[in-house]
Amino acid sequence: MNFKQRIHGVLAPVITPFNKNLSPAPERFIARCKWLLTQNCGLAVFGTNSEANSLSVNERIELLDALLAADINPERVMPGTGCCALTDTVRLTEHAVKAGCAGVLMLPPFYYKNVSEEGLYRYFSEVIERVGDSRLRIYLYHIPPIAVVGITPGLVERLLKKYPTAVAGMKDSSGNWENTKMMLDAFGKSGFDVFAGSESFLLANMKNGGAGCISATANVNPAAIDKLYREWRNPDAETQQQELDVVRKTVGQYEMIPALKAVMAHYSNDPDWATVRPPLIELSKGQVKDVIDGLEKIDFKMPAI
Amino acid sequence: MNFKQRIHGVLAPVITPFNKNLSPAPERFIARCKWLLTQNCGLAVFGTNSEANSLSVNERIELLDALLAADINPERVMPGTGCCALTDTVRLTEHAVKAGCAGVLMLPPFYYKNVSEEGLYRYFSEVIERVGDSRLRIYLYHIPPIAVVGITPGLVERLLKKYPTAVAGMKDSSGNWENTKMMLDAFGKSGFDVFAGSESFLLANMKNGGAGCISATANVNPAAIDKLYREWRNPDAETQQQELDVVRKTVGQYEMIPALKAVMAHYSNDPDWATVRPPLIELSKGQVKDVIDGLEKIDFKMPAI
Repeated sequence: MNFKQRIHGVLAPVITPFNKNLSPAPERFIARCKWLLTQNCGLAVFGTNSEANSLSVNERIELLDALLAADINPERVMPGTGCCALTDTVRLTEHAVKAGCAGVLMLPPFYYKNVSEEGLYRYFSEVIERVGDSRLRIYLYHIPPIAVVGITPGLVERLLKKYPTAVAGMKDSSGNWENTKMMLDAFGKSGFDVFAGSESFLLANMKNGGAGCISATANVNPAAIDKLYREWRNPDAETQQQELDVVRKTVGQYEMIPALKAVMAHYSNDPDWATVRPPLIELSKGQVKDVIDGLEKIDFKMPAI
Repeated sequence: MNFKQRIHGVLAPVITPFNKNLSPAPERFIARCKWLLTQNCGLAVFGTNSEANSLSVNERIELLDALLAADINPERVMPGTGCCALTDTVRLTEHAVKAGCAGVLMLPPFYYKNVSEEGLYRYFSEVIERVGDSRLRIYLYHIPPIAVVGITPGLVERLLKKYPTAVAGMKDSSGNWENTKMMLDAFGKSGFDVFAGSESFLLANMKNGGAGCISATANVNPAAIDKLYREWRNPDAETQQQELDVVRKTVGQYEMIPALKAVMAHYSNDPDWATVRPPLIELSKGQVKDVIDGLEKIDFKMPAI
């Protein structure tokens, strides 16, 4: 096969800024994405931590268009495009492919539960056939703690056999290293790129042939995570991993999405960053204090941007 | 309060017909809805059994508009409008209210799990405030086996207190009669309409002050279910209930949605009715045979329409 170098490394599921009236705030989104790129962090916009499933299809399209209009390089962008409805997934995926995005991160349809592998195979096949574009690169998104519906090895095997170019890899947010390892062992050698869903598994993932990580905490700690991605063969890699884990544990001691936004609000001196869309709620003042105190104790720094 | 008589009785989550290419088939949908109305069955279009979550927002709006353009009475229609994204839910709900629908059946936002009661309260409040129409009647949709996120009594209590007119009732598809009974006991007397999510609980629901049922099987067995709704005080009500249960058990021995569609395809001599959107798959030929044989054994009839 002849195709461009695929995206590897560290990506952030970029948190989506809202105004007080809950409308998306494209200017802050653009600024944040530009900063993440300066940290060598790719943009997995519209992920779980982006509250993507709290955005309409049109809101996602408008936000992606705003990024591209601001000269963000689409080759560093991997938007989430997986919805419950086939037609929504096709629309978002087509839009991303036409925009030249590096790939798309695709949830399985997650409303109906206990669906068959055959049903999921037909779903992804139908998306690929309808998009019908040789530039399409899908990263299957396995996040059973939230989506409940997951990506099984049998499904990956069938899809890879039929669509070896379009099915480019996966993000494993199972939180279970054994599952990531199993996917790496089964499909890694054939060029299937496995991203860990958390930097907690970054070192292990790299040692086993993984492609990097797509992690919530990359929103606030991208440089250190990217450093381990580049230096995983160094003697201090275990120490770097431990330091990343401490930051993640500190930020994630409460609900991750409002915690990330609280950290953003604090370090950027912009209280609007704390706004989440319901059904999520912001952290309490006491929780914010715990997170910020914890970060200061470990001498964590994030530039105001 | 001064408002019109609210919708009561039996409603079907109308199965959505697709063409072979998976596009919705409005003509068959209209014909089916008209037939259901002749059976005294209300139209809970875009429910779980309608594969509503496999339809885009625009597809739902177009199908509802097609029904109304075909002179279906909106006062017999309760469309499902609850999506993961607040903005989608508002758009669908506004559209239904402006169309004069009897009410809307509203799922909680179901992507993020373990969300707080406060977050769900904010979500529903925000929808009600944004729609801002005194005609709005919301039926909260509790279906934890599929949506996972559910409707708690604490949430109902808070919403009813703030929005006693807009929050009109609920559909309980927990499959747990104790939960339905608890909701009836807590809120039934204040005029909150509890619909059982299956006709299996119709008699019990009516005996305890319920409003009727919204049930999958009403797609194929509406007259008999409506008969029990009207005659639940009759001496033969228990017998009627048992007969309904046999039909439901026969249809639902395999996956309910493809089974309902297989029954429709068989009795209407229209194989296209069997088409489902992925991730669902149609029943196997053997499964279809089991269902149809079972129905014939109990002398079940459905007119070809």
